[in-house]
Amino acid sequence: MRQSENFNLRIPKGTRDLLPSEKILKNKLVDVLKSNFEIFGFSPLETPALELLDVLTAKFAAGEKSDAMKELFTLRDRGNRELGLRFDMTVPLARVVASNPQIPKPFKRYAIGPAWRNGPVKTGRYREFWQCDVDTVGIKEMYADAEILSLVNKIFDKLGIKHEIRINNRKILTGILKDLEIPLEKHKEVLITIDKLHKLTKEELLEEFYNERGIDKKTAEKILEMIKIKDIKILEKKIKNGQDGLKELKELLKYCKMFNVKNLVFDVSLARGLTYYTSTVFEVFASDGLIKSSLAAGGRWDDMIQKFSKLDKKIPAVGISFGIDVILDYLKLSNKIELKKSVCDVLVIPLETVKESIEILTELREKNIKSDIELSNKSLSKKLKYVNTLEIPFVVIVGKKDLVNGQITFKEMKKGEERKVRRGSLIEELKNILFKK
Amino acid sequence: MRQSENFNLRIPKGTRDLLPSEKILKNKLVDVLKSNFEIFGFSPLETPALELLDVLTAKFAAGEKSDAMKELFTLRDRGNRELGLRFDMTVPLARVVASNPQIPKPFKRYAIGPAWRNGPVKTGRYREFWQCDVDTVGIKEMYADAEILSLVNKIFDKLGIKHEIRINNRKILTGILKDLEIPLEKHKEVLITIDKLHKLTKEELLEEFYNERGIDKKTAEKILEMIKIKDIKILEKKIKNGQDGLKELKELLKYCKMFNVKNLVFDVSLARGLTYYTSTVFEVFASDGLIKSSLAAGGRWDDMIQKFSKLDKKIPAVGISFGIDVILDYLKLSNKIELKKSVCDVLVIPLETVKESIEILTELREKNIKSDIELSNKSLSKKLKYVNTLEIPFVVIVGKKDLVNGQITFKEMKKGEERKVRRGSLIEELKNILFKK
Repeated sequence: MRQSENFNLRIPKGTRDLLPSEKILKNKLVDVLKSNFEIFGFSPLETPALELLDVLTAKFAAGEKSDAMKELFTLRDRGNRELGLRFDMTVPLARVVASNPQIPKPFKRYAIGPAWRNGPVKTGRYREFWQCDVDTVGIKEMYADAEILSLVNKIFDKLGIKHEIRINNRKILTGILKDLEIPLEKHKEVLITIDKLHKLTKEELLEEFYNERGIDKKTAEKILEMIKIKDIKILEKKIKNGQDGLKELKELLKYCKMFNVKNLVFDVSLARGLTYYTSTVFEVFASDGLIKSSLAAGGRWDDMIQKFSKLDKKIPAVGISFGIDVILDYLKLSNKIELKKSVCDVLVIPLETVKESIEILTELREKNIKSDIELSNKSLSKKLKYVNTLEIPFVVIVGKKDLVNGQITFKEMKKGEERKVRRGSLIEELKNILFKK
Repeated sequence: MRQSENFNLRIPKGTRDLLPSEKILKNKLVDVLKSNFEIFGFSPLETPALELLDVLTAKFAAGEKSDAMKELFTLRDRGNRELGLRFDMTVPLARVVASNPQIPKPFKRYAIGPAWRNGPVKTGRYREFWQCDVDTVGIKEMYADAEILSLVNKIFDKLGIKHEIRINNRKILTGILKDLEIPLEKHKEVLITIDKLHKLTKEELLEEFYNERGIDKKTAEKILEMIKIKDIKILEKKIKNGQDGLKELKELLKYCKMFNVKNLVFDVSLARGLTYYTSTVFEVFASDGLIKSSLAAGGRWDDMIQKFSKLDKKIPAVGISFGIDVILDYLKLSNKIELKKSVCDVLVIPLETVKESIEILTELREKNIKSDIELSNKSLSKKLKYVNTLEIPFVVIVGKKDLVNGQITFKEMKKGEERKVRRGSLIEELKNILFKK
């Protein structure tokens, strides 16, 4: 047996502990996400963190050639089977849909939980992170895409985050590249440069096109000219290939109007890293630019389930990932949210009234008031220090003499106020303060 | 790159997919657990699924010699560091407490999430399972134990599960074995046989004591006689060692009375498998015996954090694990719960009224009614078949002629009723049905 005299109490690189203040905030965010997903008719799905390695790598055969392949955490079970930790929620969804043909379509599901990538660790990039996905499987029409954009508005409005949704259709971008006679095998790397439109200067872009992608200056300038066009009608006249993408985009916008989707910005330069997107793509940004990364992103992936499962018919899908970590970072940076160090709203402190104090505590808890008691033999001032450290907003001090008069002492810590309250009206008073906000 | 022509769409042995009907039920259970943990002043903590292998195995050096050691899923990160998947929530808690001395005590936390054991797969035993733990760290007095038992009552009452809490104190059991001069190194295996008291016949027990534990028949009979005693006062007179355990137990019962804990049964034979328990131990069972396994179990583990972290003072702790899977099994078996195949409560079906139907849908969603729309060109009867398959309770059919009269058609699927409703009163009607239950 391993001896552990000097073992280290650290956690693995790229992982984190969320102490209560962070986890309370995360739970709040997850609650907002879940409840609104369900209002939009998406049901929850849970798949295991562990998948067969063959299943996880099947995605790549189906078109995806991202870093995720090199970044798999692999392991073996006691039967020596090769396993891997899931790196997203899309592969598991494709597997579930392909192996459960009895599931009625449309299948609208959400999935929230950890995923893993054994990649380089940077700011905002972790090896263990939470993925939060919403997808509609089985609808090829653009109203499914519009509905997801409507969900985006609802979620970020609820969170009080002013946002902008950049949308595009992959087919338009591919059409532009085809028009310019850029060979298909170069598209992927050219798109990587296109994705940097808002980050690099014109000169840097031209240089990257020439030096790294082998695109001559004239063609590169033409690409830049085309992807800066903001007007769909102008674009329509200027492209030959990609008209199918424009048609889908106009269909999408028609439904967006019916769903009353706001804050849409057409951006033909939007490519999105993942190669499995086939049509609509979108990214959501905070309007105030407090955080530059996208807060959510997604698109339509009509081919993957079929390729993945070798079915003879296409199973279309469209979905979005909400970036839980980046949204949390935004909420903290924007000072819109108060970090709570404990869930506890009320601490009961007995002064030689253990029995009666537990009675009061039990009454509070029966009324769903988040409450606790300090029964140790520490001094009152030490107990109040604990209250202050944990930022518990209310304290009920139960003194012997007070009780005789049917009273308790009620402290509102923020106001620094202390007053006597009738024991019988304590709960009503607290409910008014806590639940009527 | 791996080719995947014939890969298999299965999931790893000992793991499961929870399709919406199962996951909706699980989410409901988790919500009841979480909200009541918070009412009792426990705050959430999240730790990574991945831990350093040295940390995970440190527990065993600290006393625990269970199968978990042999059943670790191990892996390596890209820096070739040895990692493991957590097998419980206790080791991560001990690590967090030991490495964050600034956390104010008492530290009351809950943790819910997946854990992994690479062990044999049996009914109800999975390789990936959910762990749900509640612990109070930093209180040595028995009121922390009583509070957790009070939480047990609250949770199972809320779930409508009649239950019984068997309690004991490890020190009493150890005392009995000491009194009978059973050598300390034999205690662990003797306790394993004692744990079978309610499963084996007297003859089988005596045989196991003799053949497998090397206990002579007279001593074995004496053990059986002692562990069947139900009366604390009788036990008090009969034992020499273990009086400290009895004292703690009486203290616990005193606090249980104040917390109004119900359904307690003293059972001196209760040993609990885990060796790290130092004092109070308890297990919760369904009174109707529908499921024989315990639904929740826990105890006091005063030594582990100190041993684990090499601190110079003891950090006492007491906690409980709720068996999410077994509680779900119970709820399904007891027919107390209705499995929902979708979260959706209302499906809107347009009859050539796409725009108006999306308007109605948007109104429903604004009022937090879980709703969806069927915009495909399938026939009405196919759409109603989808409603029946997913057991969606209400349908709103939006016809052109009806709309002219300010009406829609409202179907209650369970009752098989269909009636016209004024468009303006639809929401009120639905809110009355859905939210006033």
